[in-house]
Amino acid sequence: MKINDDFGKLPADYVFAELAEKVKRARKLSEKRIIDLGIGDVKLPLPKIFADEMEKAAKETGKKETFRGYPPQSGYDFLKNGIVGEYARDGAEISEDEIFVTDGAKSELGNVAELFGKGIKVLFPVPCYPAAAESNVILGNDVVYLPTDRENDFIPVPPYGKTFDLIYLCSPSNPTGGAFSYLQLKSWIDYAISSNAVIIYDGAYSRFVESGGVRTIYAVKGAKNCAIEIRSFSKSLGFTGIRCGFTVVPKELGDLNSLYKRRIGARFNGVSYISQRGAAAYFTPEGRKAAEKRINFYKTNASVLKIALKKQNLWYNNSCSSPYVFVKSPDGLSSDGFSDLLLDNCGICSTPARGFLFDGNYVRLSAFSTREDIFEAAERIADLRL
Amino acid sequence: MKINDDFGKLPADYVFAELAEKVKRARKLSEKRIIDLGIGDVKLPLPKIFADEMEKAAKETGKKETFRGYPPQSGYDFLKNGIVGEYARDGAEISEDEIFVTDGAKSELGNVAELFGKGIKVLFPVPCYPAAAESNVILGNDVVYLPTDRENDFIPVPPYGKTFDLIYLCSPSNPTGGAFSYLQLKSWIDYAISSNAVIIYDGAYSRFVESGGVRTIYAVKGAKNCAIEIRSFSKSLGFTGIRCGFTVVPKELGDLNSLYKRRIGARFNGVSYISQRGAAAYFTPEGRKAAEKRINFYKTNASVLKIALKKQNLWYNNSCSSPYVFVKSPDGLSSDGFSDLLLDNCGICSTPARGFLFDGNYVRLSAFSTREDIFEAAERIADLRL
Repeated sequence: MKINDDFGKLPADYVFAELAEKVKRARKLSEKRIIDLGIGDVKLPLPKIFADEMEKAAKETGKKETFRGYPPQSGYDFLKNGIVGEYARDGAEISEDEIFVTDGAKSELGNVAELFGKGIKVLFPVPCYPAAAESNVILGNDVVYLPTDRENDFIPVPPYGKTFDLIYLCSPSNPTGGAFSYLQLKSWIDYAISSNAVIIYDGAYSRFVESGGVRTIYAVKGAKNCAIEIRSFSKSLGFTGIRCGFTVVPKELGDLNSLYKRRIGARFNGVSYISQRGAAAYFTPEGRKAAEKRINFYKTNASVLKIALKKQNLWYNNSCSSPYVFVKSPDGLSSDGFSDLLLDNCGICSTPARGFLFDGNYVRLSAFSTREDIFEAAERIADLRL
Repeated sequence: MKINDDFGKLPADYVFAELAEKVKRARKLSEKRIIDLGIGDVKLPLPKIFADEMEKAAKETGKKETFRGYPPQSGYDFLKNGIVGEYARDGAEISEDEIFVTDGAKSELGNVAELFGKGIKVLFPVPCYPAAAESNVILGNDVVYLPTDRENDFIPVPPYGKTFDLIYLCSPSNPTGGAFSYLQLKSWIDYAISSNAVIIYDGAYSRFVESGGVRTIYAVKGAKNCAIEIRSFSKSLGFTGIRCGFTVVPKELGDLNSLYKRRIGARFNGVSYISQRGAAAYFTPEGRKAAEKRINFYKTNASVLKIALKKQNLWYNNSCSSPYVFVKSPDGLSSDGFSDLLLDNCGICSTPARGFLFDGNYVRLSAFSTREDIFEAAERIADLRL
């Protein structure tokens, strides 16, 4: 049996599978109620409009007049229409045949790499969402990490003089929360074009960008010539359990748009009609308002956590465009050490920076939680004796 | 930009994308009402129990008490329980940690190949479902086709003396409908074990097997030591638009079970809660009965088509375990020629054998249709002047 050796290059467990086990263990052993701020999973129920829309769609599947079989491979027009409209609002011109509805960003971040040659050189500024890098390792690509600086709010700067085939950028960044400015993105676009690279832009958190900020790479000049954008409804609509997102492959990217279509033909069979109907409800005034309310709720959670961290004089990334708080460990504590301390002394689960492939002493706290748990967590952090 | 050259080895379009376009064109141009027996897509609405269950699940997503975020990466226990029970009924012992809930068989047939080394040698008896072979081409594997014989009902015989890393088998076969007997499967298992190969067993149509037949490869001795089984709810439950299936990776397969888990960690994020709830309803007496009724309905459709073909003295694969009818072209007509004739003269869309990577003069007719359309199609075929 010829096993894929590249799996051997990965940590034994996926970090969030490891965390889930850790929380389970802690819940058994700890006297404190464990508050899970580790995995970035939404905790509030779906706004009524999304649940209602999916209920209606489920009912349709049982009726002759409204039953539908295989979804169109690139997604239903009713959803793609809405996405085109959103791009227009965000200052970008995208057409329906550049949009591919997907089952979420995680799988897509790896899938798109299959369009490129084997063993290509791929750049990941770190800390970064680990799944994308791990997928590239499994595919046999040459993955290079580019560490970023706290002084620069962890926003990476192009490594001029070096060349890569693919460059993964995430804005607002998971885990640091930093959102790229127009000019920061422009510098990456110029760098990519001049070095013949393609940018894979992870916009899973783009709806968290403060008003006035850049919500899509396609709002930046030149992006359609060098970037694929991957988006998700998981965090903006609370769809982590529903599985729906989309990928944009501009026609300006030469063969990539048709290669992507060809890949779907062989490797994918579309997204549940019910999920797509739920997602499409976002593109109504009521849906937009409901989603925004949730986003603001989670951002307020992040602010509550930051107040507690400030009391402790701990450094954190002060982005207002993210559901995550990236915190520096107290002096002398490693990323795992601080994470253990938070679990043992505060009953709070966090993600050590190691999980984001970063060799620095930080942890990520997720603000995707109920207000009650966030208040409780903030109090426990403020009471911590460091 | 370094493109994946292996895409160049594929036909320009995925065969079923090509067919969808063909039907669309024909519907515009033809005076006859076009009956689509090309793509194997179910046409009847979901039995009420499945639609009801998904409606209930959709409602749950909007309530605090019942909301769920990310699904467990390998699927919900309520669904895996049912699957374990079904295997027991079918004469196989499978445990929950060998089961992985997926978004359907099509993606999985390619995904599992990623567990193995790059450039491995992969055997496909043909005619076969094209997506699996195409996925292996995209991944850079060395794909070898093994033509099968009409005399043997297109059931392949192991190519003794040659060795492969992976072997794809499909039973009942798409497109020929042939179902492997216990001894036929046993010969493949013996061959795989003796040549250190892994069998990827596509059981998407396993619920169509006549009672007394083999419904899972794991009912055959030795299979857990050499086979991964991929199943789907698409055809048995009518879930083509719902996207749910599962893959079994036995623990006897050494590292493969943990590698598969590791792959999910990096490359997948689980299946919609609503879809999983719908699928789980199958494992109730009412659900089973409803699904069986649909399966028998489509099988009866196939019998209706066969009667018309018999009138025309055309050869067809006489399997009772399949929703497909595999028909030999009339003398002098190629696979595409006969397919065109059926479209032009009968207004019936079919799939030429070329679409199943087979160099023989056959077409596949799908019986996934309404009874009305099948009667109409049968009449048109019987009236055809050959």
